[in-house]
Amino acid sequence: MPQAGRRRFWAKVQYDGTDFFGFQVQAQERTVQGEIERALRAVTQQEARVVGAGRTDRGVHARGQVVTFGVSWKHSLLDLQRALNATLATDVAVMDLGMAPEGFHPRFSAWSRTYRYTLLVQQWPSPLVRRTAWHVVQRLEIERMMSGSASLLGAHDFAAFGRPPAGTNTVRTVLRAEWERKPPFLTFEIEANAYLYRMVRTIVGTLVQVGSGRLSVDEFQAIMRSMDRSQARWTAPAHGLCLMRVNYTMLEGVM
Amino acid sequence: MPQAGRRRFWAKVQYDGTDFFGFQVQAQERTVQGEIERALRAVTQQEARVVGAGRTDRGVHARGQVVTFGVSWKHSLLDLQRALNATLATDVAVMDLGMAPEGFHPRFSAWSRTYRYTLLVQQWPSPLVRRTAWHVVQRLEIERMMSGSASLLGAHDFAAFGRPPAGTNTVRTVLRAEWERKPPFLTFEIEANAYLYRMVRTIVGTLVQVGSGRLSVDEFQAIMRSMDRSQARWTAPAHGLCLMRVNYTMLEGVM
Repeated sequence: MPQAGRRRFWAKVQYDGTDFFGFQVQAQERTVQGEIERALRAVTQQEARVVGAGRTDRGVHARGQVVTFGVSWKHSLLDLQRALNATLATDVAVMDLGMAPEGFHPRFSAWSRTYRYTLLVQQWPSPLVRRTAWHVVQRLEIERMMSGSASLLGAHDFAAFGRPPAGTNTVRTVLRAEWERKPPFLTFEIEANAYLYRMVRTIVGTLVQVGSGRLSVDEFQAIMRSMDRSQARWTAPAHGLCLMRVNYTMLEGVM
Repeated sequence: MPQAGRRRFWAKVQYDGTDFFGFQVQAQERTVQGEIERALRAVTQQEARVVGAGRTDRGVHARGQVVTFGVSWKHSLLDLQRALNATLATDVAVMDLGMAPEGFHPRFSAWSRTYRYTLLVQQWPSPLVRRTAWHVVQRLEIERMMSGSASLLGAHDFAAFGRPPAGTNTVRTVLRAEWERKPPFLTFEIEANAYLYRMVRTIVGTLVQVGSGRLSVDEFQAIMRSMDRSQARWTAPAHGLCLMRVNYTMLEGVM
């Protein structure tokens, strides 16, 4: 396989996670990584490995996933983006594309990631948003959820809310955690340096218990401080979650 | 079949039109009407005919379609709505339900209908809105489109923009026609007493020609005045269109 003349590119990718078995390649299933690798193969006639900033779970969406890949390409960046978007299935698209700076890695170079979780709070399900919002029937007090999420800010051991990827500890730094009311929606945006597995969905699931009055803010904080994974038993479904943005110093002013 | 004790109900229905062959029942295809009739059969063990306010085309969505049906039902309205929503496929839902006033007909009692058309104006397709917004790449001048749509207001012969349902003429009264910029979206809302077939999609398709500079506002007005169906050859795709609301004096303050 010719490696000569290969250059590394980064791409900002949007996808509707509904019909994917998550980001990461699996032998038998349709994945985002697999779909982008298929498009690269079709466009460049080269085998290229796609590396992503975050391995989103099955059903999770992205507006700002960042990936890299190395191919040899003699035409313009715009031509590459156009060719990829013409080849990709309609549930993935490359929104932005550039040459990766020397030493850039989509996961290790990122200093933070922003996720958004969307709740639809009303009595009846809504067919037009059923793929991107979690339908919750009970009334939620946003002020209580805001109080709960305020305790997330800063560097904490989040072991209660998720398991760490192999070889890392359970301390993460949350830079921002905000609830917003946009009737009939409630949205939660969280920015952290990194996350544990299922961390955002478990935080949202647990904060919904706080909003509905089944847990107090104190109990939420006690669960967090317990560092005991068995205490936070509520996980919000995948389809309400969206990876909004990955932040890089190396791509500042570029992406 | 027992007709005794049957009462007429109205229901406000939302649907994602993507996977339906339109509203109206067809022998072999999945339709909104067919799906609601199936749910009514499952819930009430009765055959009931569903009548809708507007026969939306294949791929068109609705947030406020209004239907009626007659069934005998001994429990509460809320129970009926709950049972229907538990039975309907996830791409249709009953958002509101009530007893139909004497003489109420979803089509003939309506004095106006509001449709919204959504354009996504940017260079790249967006997977997360691909089912509900028409992706347009060219730059559009909204001021020109606003000037064009202003000529729609009032009672006019709209023969250039659509064919009439059997037995009606081609004069319709447009009460409101407004463009709004919500980057990266442009939305068009139109309220009229009634519409010709494909009228909204043809108006939008033609106004996009005005916005991109390929037609002048004068030419748009000339096409409209020509009353010649062959002049307006641009039809916006179905998936950008949504039936937002049907207005009734008889349901005022109720729906």
